[in-house]
Amino acid sequence: MENFNFYNPVTVLFGKGKISEISSQIPKNAKILMTYGGGSIKKNGVYDQVMEALEGFDVTEFSGIEANPHFETLMKAVEIVRSKKIDFLLAVGGGSVVDGTKFISAATYFEGDEWNIMAKRAPIHKAVDLGAVLTLPATGSEMNSGGVVTRVATKEKMAFGNALLFPKFSVLDPETTYSLPKRQVINGIVDAFVHVMEQYLTYPVNSPVQDRFAEGLLLTLIEEGPKALASDTPDYETRANLMWAATMALNGLIGVGVKNDWATHMIGHELTAFHGIDHAVTLAIVMPGVLAHLKQDRSEKLLQYAERVWNITEGTDEEKKTLAIEKTEAFFNQVGIKTRLSDHNVGQDSVDIIAKRFEERGYVGMLPDVSAKDVPKILESRL
Amino acid sequence: MENFNFYNPVTVLFGKGKISEISSQIPKNAKILMTYGGGSIKKNGVYDQVMEALEGFDVTEFSGIEANPHFETLMKAVEIVRSKKIDFLLAVGGGSVVDGTKFISAATYFEGDEWNIMAKRAPIHKAVDLGAVLTLPATGSEMNSGGVVTRVATKEKMAFGNALLFPKFSVLDPETTYSLPKRQVINGIVDAFVHVMEQYLTYPVNSPVQDRFAEGLLLTLIEEGPKALASDTPDYETRANLMWAATMALNGLIGVGVKNDWATHMIGHELTAFHGIDHAVTLAIVMPGVLAHLKQDRSEKLLQYAERVWNITEGTDEEKKTLAIEKTEAFFNQVGIKTRLSDHNVGQDSVDIIAKRFEERGYVGMLPDVSAKDVPKILESRL
Repeated sequence: MENFNFYNPVTVLFGKGKISEISSQIPKNAKILMTYGGGSIKKNGVYDQVMEALEGFDVTEFSGIEANPHFETLMKAVEIVRSKKIDFLLAVGGGSVVDGTKFISAATYFEGDEWNIMAKRAPIHKAVDLGAVLTLPATGSEMNSGGVVTRVATKEKMAFGNALLFPKFSVLDPETTYSLPKRQVINGIVDAFVHVMEQYLTYPVNSPVQDRFAEGLLLTLIEEGPKALASDTPDYETRANLMWAATMALNGLIGVGVKNDWATHMIGHELTAFHGIDHAVTLAIVMPGVLAHLKQDRSEKLLQYAERVWNITEGTDEEKKTLAIEKTEAFFNQVGIKTRLSDHNVGQDSVDIIAKRFEERGYVGMLPDVSAKDVPKILESRL
Repeated sequence: MENFNFYNPVTVLFGKGKISEISSQIPKNAKILMTYGGGSIKKNGVYDQVMEALEGFDVTEFSGIEANPHFETLMKAVEIVRSKKIDFLLAVGGGSVVDGTKFISAATYFEGDEWNIMAKRAPIHKAVDLGAVLTLPATGSEMNSGGVVTRVATKEKMAFGNALLFPKFSVLDPETTYSLPKRQVINGIVDAFVHVMEQYLTYPVNSPVQDRFAEGLLLTLIEEGPKALASDTPDYETRANLMWAATMALNGLIGVGVKNDWATHMIGHELTAFHGIDHAVTLAIVMPGVLAHLKQDRSEKLLQYAERVWNITEGTDEEKKTLAIEKTEAFFNQVGIKTRLSDHNVGQDSVDIIAKRFEERGYVGMLPDVSAKDVPKILESRL
């Protein structure tokens, strides 16, 4: 195991009815900006529950945070926070709303061009406190200190993070997910799955606790995901297990002391930035290509994954690894995602543009086994 | 899954050399009380490492915190903290030192009889900040907010807890465990194992994430424990995995949303209080009796445990459960613990005294399936 520091001070309020407890988590007299997306929370009752819980607080609303939240949109919220002297942000929505709200938190006191929070990973010394009411389990943003923001003007999608940006609390009420469109449930399952893989399927460092936690999350997603999609009537327990698995997939715990990758995310981000493909869909497209590229380098972890997650015990090592990668893609297909670039009208011309961007950037993920020059090969294998 | 709140703000500094980072975690100008036990840290170099890291701080020392830390001893430290206006406590040692230091933290500003922090679970409104340098992986105290203190005068061993008592940081350097006597390594393995069992082997509530995390920790302890004991030359990776498993076993995470028990601990505490038997040894004695008593009530979880942890797939349900309990006791024996009361010179007279104490108290653990009237039967089965 490698040395690590772990710190995660988020208070998780998990379960039905937990929205009612948020007022005890917010400082009295706080001036709140409540942030949300397209307004689905007004249809499913979450907005009303939050407003009831916030009775007595000074609440300003900011709606319209889109999927892959736009820097341009978020800067409008920053102006409101600054001008109204807001001192608490409450994100109500999925990972995009939470990510976007973290950016608002970071940008409020930032001096200079706020895009540098992403582009130059400029340090943040002060942030606005925030909390979250999660309605879409997927990104883990509700229990970590990072986010991703997209700049429409330049088609860039970039990450940022700072310990000041941990939510003070996050409400995870599985019932808030009942009204999600099927597409978002699917995306959440695949997003969480790939988050685990980015931290697990790398190189062995003798980390049985982290490995088994990761495998436990993958198995849970493989079991519970199809259950959630099989019925039009949401089942509380299934939704609860998916929600907790998605949070645990990216709250930092399974990634401590082990090698992390994130190559699939980095390549996927470009597909979203250029083509607007859903984040999770990009991951499902890219990951089989990345794994195939790494079949020799990451042989040991692929074999462990084959055996422990997919119960593949027969055949040669080569056959086991091939089957594990096939089963991974088949799982993405099973839950309803088309995993070829051509399914999404992306062709060689886009591969060339994305390859060029990585060539200029000079890196992909956190490990050298996926280099910028590997990107076109990986994407071409996914056409 | 049941509703839950989860909060754990401890910063973990994990790995070799991490003691050197503690000065960055302690407020400048803090007046520190460094607490420790019998002085083994002076022989193995940990004391020197800590002192070097604390250069420039005002440090007072308090040594002599014993196993199952004594209320009477700890109150002497409380007097020092009060009189010297100490504002940071640094526990250097195992779970007893950390537990004891939490009590010092809680008692310093407590008004009234400090024993009531345990006896009446009297609320704590202010506590002294503390950090820990862990040298014995076992109790999980380094990453939770509870402790257990023994009052010698009345032979009582009782628990306390408060969110104010989370360590601000804990250093987990596996190398600090190299010089542990074998007995303490063994105790740590068994203590962590039973911590997991108290939160896992109860009733199914559809919690696949928590279950698999718990099973992952049990499997890790079963694999790594004997490895650590097989050689006289400590292996870093093995020690690291045991250390992280023990911390994860009782930092709250695997117990969220599921039914917790703690009957084995409650009965075990009395064996320590009356006979001074090592805490972990009491757990190893009591747990097989508790599990046998619960063979029908907790059938589902016992069968899951049999299959997933011990790979028992053949035989009737009754046979599987019996074998799983036998394998549990055999594991305790394998690592070197004698699991019968008679091995420790405890007879029927002690069973009667302990049974009477539970009869007066009226409860055992947190679940009704182990009641006060079951205690004599359970203990008699372990004679």
